[in-house]
Amino acid sequence: MIGHHIVWDAYDCDADAISFVADIKKTLNAIVDSLDITKVAEQYKQFDPVGATGFILLAESHVSIHTWPENSFAAIDVFSCNTINTAEVNEVITKMTKCKSLVVKDIARGEMVNAFDLAN
Amino acid sequence: MIGHHIVWDAYDCDADAISFVADIKKTLNAIVDSLDITKVAEQYKQFDPVGATGFILLAESHVSIHTWPENSFAAIDVFSCNTINTAEVNEVITKMTKCKSLVVKDIARGEMVNAFDLAN
Repeated sequence: MIGHHIVWDAYDCDADAISFVADIKKTLNAIVDSLDITKVAEQYKQFDPVGATGFILLAESHVSIHTWPENSFAAIDVFSCNTINTAEVNEVITKMTKCKSLVVKDIARGEMVNAFDLAN
Repeated sequence: MIGHHIVWDAYDCDADAISFVADIKKTLNAIVDSLDITKVAEQYKQFDPVGATGFILLAESHVSIHTWPENSFAAIDVFSCNTINTAEVNEVITKMTKCKSLVVKDIARGEMVNAFDLAN
């Protein structure tokens, strides 16, 4: 296997905590700081009047956030070939978005890599 | 629901087709061109000696690619609140990476958004 791609759906967030680039930039960087990963570049976009999107490119893959304050919803993902401490990230997201519910899905990436290596 | 987050695991790729930023930049942009989505910004990183990573931030969320030429493997994802024509993207990825096997997973994002809207 290559790595884990973990996605978080954060429901019933505090709309004020997910409306602007300044906030989501802090959230994404807090996630990166909580994990053993290396930042390569980052990019953000503010939507009018509220809602923001951002991406941090990692040496190990990526972290992203997209927010819909009108639905009190934020979508976050981390894809890394390192181990991801999900409990740690749960805590960061809950604290930063003030969400009342968090649904986490763990998607294995490159599950068959070894099988293909052996076959070729 | 907010949107679809679709991930592609491309196995047994042509290592030459996924080794460098120039190639993955073409692949990501071909995916964007095949879909009804709006590019906001893009960022790439070359690994030494081979392997590359990149993302395109969209008005509708993001597209990313991370490659492991040593494993003939590429990991791609598209997250969009618009409809994603998966068949079209399958074709682009197969053509650009020359992969022999493609595993696609469709992850619904924000499934409970309406439920929360109704509850609040």
